Amino acid sequence: MPSEHTITRRVEFSETDTAGIVHYSNFFRYMEACEHDFFRSLGISIVDKASDIGWPRVCANCEYRKPLFFEDEFTVALHVTGKTSKSLTYGFVFTKEDYEIARGGYTVCCVRRDSTGAFKAADIPADVSRMIEVAPVSDDAAK
Amino acid sequence: MPSEHTITRRVEFSETDTAGIVHYSNFFRYMEACEHDFFRSLGISIVDKASDIGWPRVCANCEYRKPLFFEDEFTVALHVTGKTSKSLTYGFVFTKEDYEIARGGYTVCCVRRDSTGAFKAADIPADVSRMIEVAPVSDDAAK
Amino acid sequence: MPSEHTITRRVEFSETDTAGIVHYSNFFRYMEACEHDFFRSLGISIVDKASDIGWPRVCANCEYRKPLFFEDEFTVALHVTGKTSKSLTYGFVFTKEDYEIARGGYTVCCVRRDSTGAFKAADIPADVSRMIEVAPVSDDAAK
Amino acid sequence: MPSEHTITRRVEFSETDTAGIVHYSNFFRYMEACEHDFFRSLGISIVDKASDIGWPRVCANCEYRKPLFFEDEFTVALHVTGKTSKSLTYGFVFTKEDYEIARGGYTVCCVRRDSTGAFKAADIPADVSRMIEVAPVSDDAAK
Repeated sequence: MPSEHTITRRVEFSETDTAGIVHYSNFFRYMEACEHDFFRSLGISIVDKASDIGWPRVCANCEYRKPLFFEDEFTVALHVTGKTSKSLTYGFVFTKEDYEIARGGYTVCCVRRDSTGAFKAADIPADVSRMIEVAPVSDDAAK
Repeated sequence: MPSEHTITRRVEFSETDTAGIVHYSNFFRYMEACEHDFFRSLGISIVDKASDIGWPRVCANCEYRKPLFFEDEFTVALHVTGKTSKSLTYGFVFTKEDYEIARGGYTVCCVRRDSTGAFKAADIPADVSRMIEVAPVSDDAAK
Repeated sequence: MPSEHTITRRVEFSETDTAGIVHYSNFFRYMEACEHDFFRSLGISIVDKASDIGWPRVCANCEYRKPLFFEDEFTVALHVTGKTSKSLTYGFVFTKEDYEIARGGYTVCCVRRDSTGAFKAADIPADVSRMIEVAPVSDDAAK
Repeated sequence: MPSEHTITRRVEFSETDTAGIVHYSNFFRYMEACEHDFFRSLGISIVDKASDIGWPRVCANCEYRKPLFFEDEFTVALHVTGKTSKSLTYGFVFTKEDYEIARGGYTVCCVRRDSTGAFKAADIPADVSRMIEVAPVSDDAAK
């Protein structure tokens, strides 16, 4: 059952800042791009209009080891590190060439729009939940 | 009747790029921030959930004269330069200290969601239209 | 001699806005991504620290025909539409499936840092200039 | 000695996403805007070209309690929560009306460019360090 996913990207000019490196907030956009590509790899989408389901973040974090520069090619590797009936937790490792750039993660909570239009925590739909499992702890992820 | 509006901003770090200047795409975000503040100054909002009205851009342009740097304080001056039953055209002039940084503009088209959920061009609501008029051509705007 | 280049992208969540479509400013980021990939396809980079050359935008524009939504796959096709000793002008056409989403363009000016640190208009380096030519006018680009 | 700072902002359209709320990555841009305004309030700038000092993030985190929507007005309150000879740690609380939206923080490390152009951890300049102290633990920050 899928628990890991990796994407490769190249840093774009608009993602860098005056310090000449990728702005620290953009690592969170990269994580999300990897998560959404993970969903697509399962044949589903994070945005499912039919189901009125949403996946807001509950918390997010990132540790920065080395900078990324314009045009750097790097990978983002996702591991599912936690799963409850209503939430998923992902860990992400950023790698360029053979060294680690950053690592981080976030927890998303499954929500569903109720009759008043407000979002309430909801069980992850069964067809999604059955496709995703927690990754075995690897030496890398445990570092 | 209102036809002009000015805001003052300061360049944020995340708006700059590796060249050490504001990324050229962000001038379009600044223009929009000024337009939306213009609407707020009229007591209305560009996002009106009750009316199902939207204001997508039809076209946009910008001429860049001088760069903006981190922490630069600048003004964005809006002039309404065109108005039809279904569209508004704005011109914007960016100024820092006493020189012009850039000028540009865009046209927005008023749209309304039809019964199928699609957006169709629609008349600007009367209560909005009656508040906005085309600015007289100034020496500055005509430059 | 190269005068055209095309990239394929997929809309990311962070590129959309409350209207549920790609924010209009992001089309300018997509254009730039295509231009920079065009340079890479020539074996060069828009950021060349050795040469102290920069390529600021002089002007930019975009016409919006149809919206792009989250996860839409689309192409950006670049045509070199103008070339002087100091500037290049690009046209871009955005296409999704078989219909046009938007078209736009911009002019970049080649600049070089002088002894005071200021940027001055400069001739495009010969090794870059000899690789790029104006595209023949196509029926599509002339539409 | 200063250890706290608060800014007030209004959510801009380009900061929201298809879910109709502020994209989670933008909370990190808001934190940074508050930190940089804190520095300006001390009469200094985070970007000091004369000193060749930089302040990259070492780690960052955010917990999201409630969403922010387009045009919401909110405050970001900074507290200095840690200080070493080479680093500063900030906590941030986001508040809208009388309820908490989010809280997070990050650690910045002071770096200085060495003779090879690489950045190395460096002591915080004395004139900066003497202006900043760790905030007393408040009931609010300790929540």
